[in-house]
Amino acid sequence: MQASGGGTRDLTVETVSELGEFGLVERITRALPTTDVVLVGPGDDAAEISVGGTLVVSTDVLVDQRHFRRDWSTAHEVGRKSAASNLSDINAMGGHATALTLGLAVPGDLPVAWVDELVRGVVEECALVGAAVVGGDVTASDTLVIAVTVVGEATRTVRRSGAQVGDVVAVAGTLGLAGAGFAALSRGFRSPRAAVEAHRVPHPPYGSGETGADAGATAMIDVSDGLLGDLGHVARASGVQIDLSSEHVPIESAVITVAEALGRHPVSFVLTGGDDYALAATFPPEAALPDDWYPIGAVVAVPAGDQPRVTVDGLPWDGETGHEHFR
Amino acid sequence: MQASGGGTRDLTVETVSELGEFGLVERITRALPTTDVVLVGPGDDAAEISVGGTLVVSTDVLVDQRHFRRDWSTAHEVGRKSAASNLSDINAMGGHATALTLGLAVPGDLPVAWVDELVRGVVEECALVGAAVVGGDVTASDTLVIAVTVVGEATRTVRRSGAQVGDVVAVAGTLGLAGAGFAALSRGFRSPRAAVEAHRVPHPPYGSGETGADAGATAMIDVSDGLLGDLGHVARASGVQIDLSSEHVPIESAVITVAEALGRHPVSFVLTGGDDYALAATFPPEAALPDDWYPIGAVVAVPAGDQPRVTVDGLPWDGETGHEHFR
Repeated sequence: MQASGGGTRDLTVETVSELGEFGLVERITRALPTTDVVLVGPGDDAAEISVGGTLVVSTDVLVDQRHFRRDWSTAHEVGRKSAASNLSDINAMGGHATALTLGLAVPGDLPVAWVDELVRGVVEECALVGAAVVGGDVTASDTLVIAVTVVGEATRTVRRSGAQVGDVVAVAGTLGLAGAGFAALSRGFRSPRAAVEAHRVPHPPYGSGETGADAGATAMIDVSDGLLGDLGHVARASGVQIDLSSEHVPIESAVITVAEALGRHPVSFVLTGGDDYALAATFPPEAALPDDWYPIGAVVAVPAGDQPRVTVDGLPWDGETGHEHFR
Repeated sequence: MQASGGGTRDLTVETVSELGEFGLVERITRALPTTDVVLVGPGDDAAEISVGGTLVVSTDVLVDQRHFRRDWSTAHEVGRKSAASNLSDINAMGGHATALTLGLAVPGDLPVAWVDELVRGVVEECALVGAAVVGGDVTASDTLVIAVTVVGEATRTVRRSGAQVGDVVAVAGTLGLAGAGFAALSRGFRSPRAAVEAHRVPHPPYGSGETGADAGATAMIDVSDGLLGDLGHVARASGVQIDLSSEHVPIESAVITVAEALGRHPVSFVLTGGDDYALAATFPPEAALPDDWYPIGAVVAVPAGDQPRVTVDGLPWDGETGHEHFR
């Protein structure tokens, strides 16, 4: 679904500038369910949330044509993904999200129906983890920008800096599917379905952050930019090297299909594809891995003269390591 | 300070696309002080904040050319204002802010120095209330968009819906200065200084939210869109009318200067000017108003056949009531 341009404007489509700021806020607010911990939801100066223990908070900003494309994804899918990318950060701290705020900067000619569907997608994704949308802001902008902030709670948080030499490196969730889907869409393909759909709506392993924390994970991160790039953050924060075993890295069949079609090696999608929002963590060797986690490597000491980084089968990876904006 | 355009690009100015996403995140993170309640600041999947009692959370989105103009305000001023508008929402709930996240969607040719100054402004404004910048996100965008989320705590929150017939209506902070400053700047004036500076960097009455809550305020809101418009939200949420006494509404001398220069009535700035982030609240008649609050009107019953709204000296106000985006 796309905003109608000035010249071909469909007058039967209600736009956000026709509805106005307060009308749009009211319409969005009406669509929002609530939860037990929400004392006050949208509509006041701030939301009120009952919280105990440690609060975790994370913000993501998504920009039209960069993080999503309205000709590739429906508004509902963009909403699902906008929420998922942020809920995943709470998952990656070992916590569970309780509340989300939604900031929207939208062009005046954007159809109101697009916003409705976006909000529906955000709400549905939040429902997967029991979180409520408690507030936000809408304003006009030439570029469509979605800013999501999630707050959550954690009994035991797991940071990036705790990996120890001898730990097992494990993953929860799928790897490479969304990256393969992006590559397929970029070449004009609309299949394989599993990959294309994973790019449009990722399926983070919600709950695995808490199972990993409970099992004693020493470091954890979500795979948003690519496994090598994100584990590189863990390696540097922890002052260790991480060695992945390529034979233990699972490869989805849809990833193989895309790799063959595009003449690329399937493992490159698994190692460098972002946007799946799998979790990667390190566990003490004596820890019993929960069922939703599978081992893919080990934490090793940084050799003399070398630096903290990620290797594959003991060697440096010579391809791209992940996505970075601006470059 | 303005981003250099493609044709006149100053090669001595480092841009965000030259620095890259991770470089920009690291540079911003280095500039951030912390506080006692921050267990983990920027750099992990989410920040960790120690919190007790009720959490309050609010989000604002600010867009270049709409909420600020880079030829009118320095990056430092934009940062101060971006933080202030959000910290004010926590003030207006009767709470105090503890942590802030900063989402930035910025054009690639924006000078890094502009971002540095923006962050410095955000940090300085946060320091006024003892809050820490604990995280955020940066990404590329054609339009410069700043998304701020603040979380805070409150011992006793004050919502918009509690105003009672017979209550006193009172204000903390200044009214009309920022609106007069905006009007002056719009006509090409650079003075009076007090008004122009109030538009660039508002001075919310931080702390007055808590003194108002402690004194028993029944409803509270911050004046971001204009006194009449914002008190209209209180009137509708509470099912009452609010009558303001024009002789009790204080008028700053800079507002009178601008009004005279532009041929407008000074009280129109006080009643409809936004962006000062004063607080307006209702108090039981027996409450002792704290020193930082002054009475400006009363809560009255909705006459039969009428509706909740705000009147001035018993009559409807016939001018504009405030600002709304998209329209």
